[in-house]
Amino acid sequence: MLSVNYSLSCVTFDPKGKILQVEYAKEAVKQGSTSLGLKSNDFVVLVSLKKSPHDLASHQEKVFDIDDHMGIAIAGLTADARYLCKFMRSECLNYWYTHDSHHPTERLIGKIAKKAQIKTFHPAKRPFGVGLLVGSVDETGTHLFESCPSGNYYEYVAMAIGARSQSAKTYLEKNFEQFTTLSWQELVKHGLKALKASAQETELSEHNVSVGIVGKGLNFRLLNNDELRASIAEISDAMDVSE
Amino acid sequence: MLSVNYSLSCVTFDPKGKILQVEYAKEAVKQGSTSLGLKSNDFVVLVSLKKSPHDLASHQEKVFDIDDHMGIAIAGLTADARYLCKFMRSECLNYWYTHDSHHPTERLIGKIAKKAQIKTFHPAKRPFGVGLLVGSVDETGTHLFESCPSGNYYEYVAMAIGARSQSAKTYLEKNFEQFTTLSWQELVKHGLKALKASAQETELSEHNVSVGIVGKGLNFRLLNNDELRASIAEISDAMDVSE
Amino acid sequence: MLSVNYSLSCVTFDPKGKILQVEYAKEAVKQGSTSLGLKSNDFVVLVSLKKSPHDLASHQEKVFDIDDHMGIAIAGLTADARYLCKFMRSECLNYWYTHDSHHPTERLIGKIAKKAQIKTFHPAKRPFGVGLLVGSVDETGTHLFESCPSGNYYEYVAMAIGARSQSAKTYLEKNFEQFTTLSWQELVKHGLKALKASAQETELSEHNVSVGIVGKGLNFRLLNNDELRASIAEISDAMDVSE
Amino acid sequence: MLSVNYSLSCVTFDPKGKILQVEYAKEAVKQGSTSLGLKSNDFVVLVSLKKSPHDLASHQEKVFDIDDHMGIAIAGLTADARYLCKFMRSECLNYWYTHDSHHPTERLIGKIAKKAQIKTFHPAKRPFGVGLLVGSVDETGTHLFESCPSGNYYEYVAMAIGARSQSAKTYLEKNFEQFTTLSWQELVKHGLKALKASAQETELSEHNVSVGIVGKGLNFRLLNNDELRASIAEISDAMDVSE
Amino acid sequence: MLSVNYSLSCVTFDPKGKILQVEYAKEAVKQGSTSLGLKSNDFVVLVSLKKSPHDLASHQEKVFDIDDHMGIAIAGLTADARYLCKFMRSECLNYWYTHDSHHPTERLIGKIAKKAQIKTFHPAKRPFGVGLLVGSVDETGTHLFESCPSGNYYEYVAMAIGARSQSAKTYLEKNFEQFTTLSWQELVKHGLKALKASAQETELSEHNVSVGIVGKGLNFRLLNNDELRASIAEISDAMDVSE
Amino acid sequence: MLSVNYSLSCVTFDPKGKILQVEYAKEAVKQGSTSLGLKSNDFVVLVSLKKSPHDLASHQEKVFDIDDHMGIAIAGLTADARYLCKFMRSECLNYWYTHDSHHPTERLIGKIAKKAQIKTFHPAKRPFGVGLLVGSVDETGTHLFESCPSGNYYEYVAMAIGARSQSAKTYLEKNFEQFTTLSWQELVKHGLKALKASAQETELSEHNVSVGIVGKGLNFRLLNNDELRASIAEISDAMDVSE
Amino acid sequence: MLSVNYSLSCVTFDPKGKILQVEYAKEAVKQGSTSLGLKSNDFVVLVSLKKSPHDLASHQEKVFDIDDHMGIAIAGLTADARYLCKFMRSECLNYWYTHDSHHPTERLIGKIAKKAQIKTFHPAKRPFGVGLLVGSVDETGTHLFESCPSGNYYEYVAMAIGARSQSAKTYLEKNFEQFTTLSWQELVKHGLKALKASAQETELSEHNVSVGIVGKGLNFRLLNNDELRASIAEISDAMDVSE
Repeated sequence: MLSVNYSLSCVTFDPKGKILQVEYAKEAVKQGSTSLGLKSNDFVVLVSLKKSPHDLASHQEKVFDIDDHMGIAIAGLTADARYLCKFMRSECLNYWYTHDSHHPTERLIGKIAKKAQIKTFHPAKRPFGVGLLVGSVDETGTHLFESCPSGNYYEYVAMAIGARSQSAKTYLEKNFEQFTTLSWQELVKHGLKALKASAQETELSEHNVSVGIVGKGLNFRLLNNDELRASIAEISDAMDVSE
Repeated sequence: MLSVNYSLSCVTFDPKGKILQVEYAKEAVKQGSTSLGLKSNDFVVLVSLKKSPHDLASHQEKVFDIDDHMGIAIAGLTADARYLCKFMRSECLNYWYTHDSHHPTERLIGKIAKKAQIKTFHPAKRPFGVGLLVGSVDETGTHLFESCPSGNYYEYVAMAIGARSQSAKTYLEKNFEQFTTLSWQELVKHGLKALKASAQETELSEHNVSVGIVGKGLNFRLLNNDELRASIAEISDAMDVSE
Repeated sequence: MLSVNYSLSCVTFDPKGKILQVEYAKEAVKQGSTSLGLKSNDFVVLVSLKKSPHDLASHQEKVFDIDDHMGIAIAGLTADARYLCKFMRSECLNYWYTHDSHHPTERLIGKIAKKAQIKTFHPAKRPFGVGLLVGSVDETGTHLFESCPSGNYYEYVAMAIGARSQSAKTYLEKNFEQFTTLSWQELVKHGLKALKASAQETELSEHNVSVGIVGKGLNFRLLNNDELRASIAEISDAMDVSE
Repeated sequence: MLSVNYSLSCVTFDPKGKILQVEYAKEAVKQGSTSLGLKSNDFVVLVSLKKSPHDLASHQEKVFDIDDHMGIAIAGLTADARYLCKFMRSECLNYWYTHDSHHPTERLIGKIAKKAQIKTFHPAKRPFGVGLLVGSVDETGTHLFESCPSGNYYEYVAMAIGARSQSAKTYLEKNFEQFTTLSWQELVKHGLKALKASAQETELSEHNVSVGIVGKGLNFRLLNNDELRASIAEISDAMDVSE
Repeated sequence: MLSVNYSLSCVTFDPKGKILQVEYAKEAVKQGSTSLGLKSNDFVVLVSLKKSPHDLASHQEKVFDIDDHMGIAIAGLTADARYLCKFMRSECLNYWYTHDSHHPTERLIGKIAKKAQIKTFHPAKRPFGVGLLVGSVDETGTHLFESCPSGNYYEYVAMAIGARSQSAKTYLEKNFEQFTTLSWQELVKHGLKALKASAQETELSEHNVSVGIVGKGLNFRLLNNDELRASIAEISDAMDVSE
Repeated sequence: MLSVNYSLSCVTFDPKGKILQVEYAKEAVKQGSTSLGLKSNDFVVLVSLKKSPHDLASHQEKVFDIDDHMGIAIAGLTADARYLCKFMRSECLNYWYTHDSHHPTERLIGKIAKKAQIKTFHPAKRPFGVGLLVGSVDETGTHLFESCPSGNYYEYVAMAIGARSQSAKTYLEKNFEQFTTLSWQELVKHGLKALKASAQETELSEHNVSVGIVGKGLNFRLLNNDELRASIAEISDAMDVSE
Repeated sequence: MLSVNYSLSCVTFDPKGKILQVEYAKEAVKQGSTSLGLKSNDFVVLVSLKKSPHDLASHQEKVFDIDDHMGIAIAGLTADARYLCKFMRSECLNYWYTHDSHHPTERLIGKIAKKAQIKTFHPAKRPFGVGLLVGSVDETGTHLFESCPSGNYYEYVAMAIGARSQSAKTYLEKNFEQFTTLSWQELVKHGLKALKASAQETELSEHNVSVGIVGKGLNFRLLNNDELRASIAEISDAMDVSE
């Protein structure tokens, strides 16, 4: 009975100083399918496992472009992600028109975090039920940020979020030190291997995987089906060999 | 006691990160009578089983035209569907006056999804208790979308929603690969067969079935009673033979 | 405990996807005294059993004129009905001044349904606790609609609502096929017989029965006491004979 | 537990389709001291038993004049009655200034009923806890209306409301047929006898009884103490004799 | 459990038709220290037992002047009384400037009652937790009114409110008939005797008693300490003798 | 269960006529550290025991100057006190600019009381959780007032509030009669002795004691550390001797 | 059950006069990682242990610059801290433009406290879940303040807040007396030693420690990695020796 009441509203702390609605919103992120990101000095790669509600459906996109220099991968409530995605795109556009340059990454992350924090401040709102991995390149180099329902954000060299992301994280922890100087093609392979680790029972294919890349001299774009198929085949061979 | 409290408001996550009111609204869709859609390269067909509250009543329409190039089939709360239907019609009209062309399908679906997502953001609102199958044809080809109470939407080649839609889905899964090049007449037959699968105890007739068609060079329209009677007769014969 | 909480507000679905407040408002309709309607190609007749709170009181009117071409019979909360009645009258009047013609029936029904649906969308409102049978004649012929607390509406050839309406419905189901070409006098007799079936213990009289008629070339009006007395006598004789 | 929750707000139906707050407001009327009204073709008489909170207090008035042609007797919350009384007086005044004639009775009753119905439509309001007997004379003759917390109203030839009003009603039922042609003096006597029936243990006197009269050619007025004393004496003698 | 829920808001009737919050506010009046009033044809006297939170504190005033012709004695929440007192003073002042005469007593009482009734009409308000005895003289003679949290008011010849007021009431009931022609000095003595009856264990003194007087040709004023001491001494002697 | 519900909102009376939230706010005052005041004909002295959250912290000020002629000592929530302190300062300033004289004490106390009473009138507010002792000198002499969360205020010759204030009150009760003609230096000694009585285990020092003085010809000021040290030493000697 | 209800809203006192939501917000501060501050006559040093959600993440900054003369270290909800940080920066900037000088420290602390107190005054808000240590130098010397969720603030010579801060406090209590004349380099060492005491199992490094310094003639700045590494090495050596 106790914990229930504390958890019903964002403007209520529980006796341990937690805002439970924020904790539960994080749970919504954990239920989303795996998304991950990793970066080298020159490139950032975002990789997501796409979900499909049914065999007859197309898969739901999980990686979105925000701007030439920025993209996101999501885990959690897609509808909330679309809301934030729209906000980010319009901020980047406005910035471009005003300053004639790309929106600095951390400042945009800060704006999202502020939006998220406000949601934890009003009784008539709920936290966003989605986590974002933001990959971008700007004057200060390549960046990989995670934005959380709590209004916190963190910078990473590589990170995985969503359901069963633990195996992906383990892979990334083991290998992140060698990422620094890799080409984007190599980063994509590591990303797919990490995703494979989390999604062992799901056969990866160009239909259920999304890969977004951005880097110095490389505008953000999603890999097309041919590129995806080739990359997946490559890592499958490699893994078969390694077994 | 626990799950009850979490379920009372849209702005409340439960400890598993679910917004239960959204789950329950989906249940309202599942209680609606069956609607289904299927498409070929050139045509989309929407088929619904119409409900009648009483033998003395006319059947309640389940397939609605939105525009020359678009129609919807619904499952769930009819009153909510009327609300969304009106919105879609007015959006299409506005688009036509502004751009002198049809409203691109996915953009309109996106607008509905945004409307639905907002309903999950305010404590004083409830999610829409209706699912839509949207069939349309635009410059990018034929489309079949499903829009959900959660603010999610999916693209399908064929899909069935509502009560006992499982049998219809099974039929569509078995046969969807041959739909690609069919004429709308053939699609209608497959649609009726799929509906028949879900509604075995109900005798299909021109009174309790609605069929909407749209395609390249074919404005959206509902089949009239004669066409319906003929098509139903045809599949009955075919099925009698096949038995 | 469970169902209670779900039922307290219109903006709350229960786990089965029902809005219980709407269900309970329908119950208010079922508690009202019987009203029924039936139609031929040229006429619509509305018949109600009027309630009286006490022997010393006059009976409360249950059939109301809306316009020359339209009337309603109600079951449920009279106070809510008056609210809707006033709305319909003013819509008809406005339409007349604007278009110089009668308000098309289904469009007006649509407006009421929208009003009712909105009541199921806000936490600070309650659904209307009344059901309406709307009889009208317009360019598309004679119409008999039922408008429900849920925001749904249905077209009928004959229908009965309110307490113990089952027997009336049974009578109408048995006989509706012969209504098509009847004069309004014959329709009135069938209506009174159907009402008699539902109100067996209550002696019908000009005091506790209301009958409204409308048709091609016949403005909506309520039968006066003499007409009522005569009609009731006629069916009583007929029924005595038939016994 | 169940019925409690349903009863807390006007915008909540219980599973039987009742708005319990309205039912409880009616109970407030039943707790008020007895008021009654009766009418002949030419006169209406309102009679109330006045309550006194203490022997040292004057009795609280229960019959109020609204206009030359109209008065009310109340049962229930006096404070709510004052609110409605003020509303009625100002409506009559406005009507007089606008139309130079008396406010038609039923139209004014309709306005009160609308006010009462709105109170049952908003969660932040409560129904009026008072019942009104309205006696008036206008172009359509003499009228006796009852207005209820539910927003319903009824026309009567004679009626009693409030605590222990059953005996008064029984008296009125037995005798109402002879009221039609009576003078107001005779009506007053019948009214006092009916009141006496309800208030057997209370000695009627000019201090605890109020009588209002209105009729054709007779502006509404309250009987003065001498008239009251005389009338009460008369019926006491009569009743002593009849015993 | 039942009565609790009904009692939480003013806009909630309990099943017996009571607004419990109003009942509880009356209880706040009953908890206040005794105030009483009594009147003759020419004078009104208000007497209060003043409370002191501590021996080191001055006693809290319970009798207040409103205007030349009017004063009040209170029982209940002093803070609420101050609010009403301020309202009454400003109404009297406005009336004086507008009409160049004293505010008629009952009309002012009516305004307070309306203010109190409104407090019982909104969920976000609470009834006033204070009872007022209003003593005044105007063109219609001397008046003693009680204004209640319910929005009711009563006129008295003599009345006592607050804690242990029963003994004072008993005294007043026994003696009120001889008050009619008394001088204000005699009324004061009766008032003090009645207060003494209620406050037997408390020694009356000029410090804990307030007496306000008003009458024909006598502006409202509080007795000063000397007058109080003298009057108290007089009744003490009298009572010693009578013992 | 009962008392809980009544206590949750200021706009709720409990069945005994109490507003429990006000009672609980008083409890917050009782939990504050001791503050006391005492006065002679010419001076008022305010004394507080200052709290420190930690040995490393400076002590939190408990005595504040409002104006040349007025200061306050507080017990309860410091944050609420700051709010009221700011209000009082600004009122005094405004008064000065408007009237070119000091704000009369009781009128300012009345304003605070009104502010406090309003807090007990709205469901969305809470009472102030702080008690004020206001010491001042104006044209009517020296004053010592206490302002409570309930909106009540009292005048005292000497008073102590806050935790363990009982012993201080006992000291003041025993000695207040000799205060009348004392110099402020003597009053300070009595004040410190009373504080000592309440804070027996705490060693008084210039760090944890605040003393404010105001009087005829003496603007309000806080004693400085030297004066405090001297005074404390003096009473310690005196008490050692007296033991 | 009891304490739960009282704790749900800031506008609710519990029976002991506590606002539990404020107590719980303080708990959020206690859950944050350790931050501490210490000062000499000329310098203030802020030291924080930075948290990292994961090995792959950068550490979250805990020390922020506000202005040339001021910085803060935080414990608790980072998102709330960012909100307050932004507020402080903008206040300092405004002050600078208006007065051409630094914002006086205590006045700014007062503004934050007011912001925090208001959060405890409205039902639709929650207290800030963060504690601030504010270090600054202004015309009145060096300052170290703590600002709490309750709206209270305290001045310290040295203080530690957050999880396991007890050991740091103990260290500071033992040594604070020698801080008065230290250089900032010496203060940093003491700060790191105190932090080490609280974070025994965590190896301090330039990655998980932040140190901010400000002083007379020294603008606020964060130590860079080299300085941090050097300082940490120094104290490690010292402590090894001391063991």
